[in-house]
Amino acid sequence: MSWSSTQVTLAARPTGYPDESTWEVATTEVPEPGPGQVVVRVDLLSLDPAMRGWLNDVRSYVPPVGIGEVMRAFGSGEVVASAHDEIAVGDVVSGVFGVREHALVDGAEVTRLDTDLAPPSTWLGALGMPGMTAYFGLEDVGRAQPGDTVLVSAAAGAVGSTVVQLAKARGCRVIGIAGGPEKVAWVEETGADVAIDYKAGGLLKQIRAAAPDGVDVYFDNVGGEVLDAALASLARGARVVLCGAISGYNDETLPDGPRRYMSLLVFRASMTGFVVFDYEDRYPEAVAAIGELITSGRMQPRETVLTGGIEAFPEALLGLYRGVNTGKLLLQVSG
Amino acid sequence: MSWSSTQVTLAARPTGYPDESTWEVATTEVPEPGPGQVVVRVDLLSLDPAMRGWLNDVRSYVPPVGIGEVMRAFGSGEVVASAHDEIAVGDVVSGVFGVREHALVDGAEVTRLDTDLAPPSTWLGALGMPGMTAYFGLEDVGRAQPGDTVLVSAAAGAVGSTVVQLAKARGCRVIGIAGGPEKVAWVEETGADVAIDYKAGGLLKQIRAAAPDGVDVYFDNVGGEVLDAALASLARGARVVLCGAISGYNDETLPDGPRRYMSLLVFRASMTGFVVFDYEDRYPEAVAAIGELITSGRMQPRETVLTGGIEAFPEALLGLYRGVNTGKLLLQVSG
Repeated sequence: MSWSSTQVTLAARPTGYPDESTWEVATTEVPEPGPGQVVVRVDLLSLDPAMRGWLNDVRSYVPPVGIGEVMRAFGSGEVVASAHDEIAVGDVVSGVFGVREHALVDGAEVTRLDTDLAPPSTWLGALGMPGMTAYFGLEDVGRAQPGDTVLVSAAAGAVGSTVVQLAKARGCRVIGIAGGPEKVAWVEETGADVAIDYKAGGLLKQIRAAAPDGVDVYFDNVGGEVLDAALASLARGARVVLCGAISGYNDETLPDGPRRYMSLLVFRASMTGFVVFDYEDRYPEAVAAIGELITSGRMQPRETVLTGGIEAFPEALLGLYRGVNTGKLLLQVSG
Repeated sequence: MSWSSTQVTLAARPTGYPDESTWEVATTEVPEPGPGQVVVRVDLLSLDPAMRGWLNDVRSYVPPVGIGEVMRAFGSGEVVASAHDEIAVGDVVSGVFGVREHALVDGAEVTRLDTDLAPPSTWLGALGMPGMTAYFGLEDVGRAQPGDTVLVSAAAGAVGSTVVQLAKARGCRVIGIAGGPEKVAWVEETGADVAIDYKAGGLLKQIRAAAPDGVDVYFDNVGGEVLDAALASLARGARVVLCGAISGYNDETLPDGPRRYMSLLVFRASMTGFVVFDYEDRYPEAVAAIGELITSGRMQPRETVLTGGIEAFPEALLGLYRGVNTGKLLLQVSG
């Protein structure tokens, strides 16, 4: 038996925003699994800001997606065939399945999901990469302490909204930055002490009003002007956590750097980058901590699920950079 | 009795490089010291890159020099009158004396110099602020370990040349960046494994050739393009020590930020600012370590001493930003 699988491959590297020339959609057949392999029917695909970086032919923390290769993507789904001892047909799993309807992967590369704790969508959000990113960025890189003032950009996004809620649970004062009244309202709902609308202008003034004693931890998901405003608002000994720079990911040239970086000197502060995959050994710690917050009702994970199947992937990805989502952005593929 | 003292005050805040309108030179009389005070005849003035920042009316780690105030400067000299119990006429001392020939200061604010260990000029260089800056930046902020590859910019300057020699003594592989063949030759003389001439072009290529496995500690004294080239050449887990940004201190607008700052994420690296005054309690530790290297011949401090007296200060300061010095730049005032 085999499975028909529509998939999206990288046809050409984009400059600027990906467009129709970037992708090729085709349908292939996925064969029976070989020893140790499984076939997964992909139900949900994760849309991640980092995806744009994977399209560039540059040295980074993961190799770029090759021309003609299936676009890399996290996803969740159900095992429909297994030649792996510990994985059964019907298991609900997550993994790097790629943008396709069916994935033939090594059993060692899938993670079985505890759907009693949370639905698969949450396992791609607060309990998945975005949640792990939020947890280790805040705890290990940012070293957030009770009483700290924590500023988070893209606070309505998958990572940012988890940072807001983790920081509140940690006893921090939390300021979230988001774009537009709807997102700002949701950031307040998730427990932020102050939610700032960067689209309303006067960002630096707004941050300073919200953090008159300065920011102890700035969790940066966006780069650009927001990073500069945050740098100008630090407290002494502040930690800037470099998680992402979504504002510049689709720029055709390298965007400007943070002009205010010498604030790091004035405030004796640090700016530190990290890559969540380095913390893989400690994911169980983060899953336990976040899972406990979800179970006890102290964290409300949210996901925005787009429909339209595999063919909708190119448009869904652009939606991510336009900021259509509150919480984690997912694409429903099947199921 | 009183002492005639020519002094330089700040007449107007400069935009860009200071010029004749920036300064006012005048002669005043310095009176007998009151209780606890001393009068110092200033022999040597320290010219420091940070001086330019002290002229700007902005919030920083020290207040700006006020209009009409004597320009702030470190210096060394001899006590010519004392009303302080523990300081005697004839003592050789250093302190923040300002740009003037005689300074009336609190005895608590002067440091007696051990001229058996090194001459006063060295107490303003490798054993003074630049040396303290090099030591704590490399040891505490950079956490340099034996075997690390350490890259230093302005490696022929007061701080940079001390970093080069401290890092060599620490067992690091050291790459120094300087401008022009003469400075490069001296950086090699001080023990750098590789000395790079940034004026020769192809800086990124030169750094990568010198550090094929990447840079573990980058000690940044200059900012600008050199910082960007260093960021693109980091090793995993690298520490960027933000000590200064002399390349932009005289810019009329805030210079561009480091475009390559997202390298911090790719390389899981940090960029940390510091201010040497925070380490005041630990200066004796640094003086002991550097003094030992000097005594044992493993460090050759160097100073460039300009002449011309107090009136030569404005020109001497510009010389600093043009890079006329190898090692510490000083102005001989008297003595």
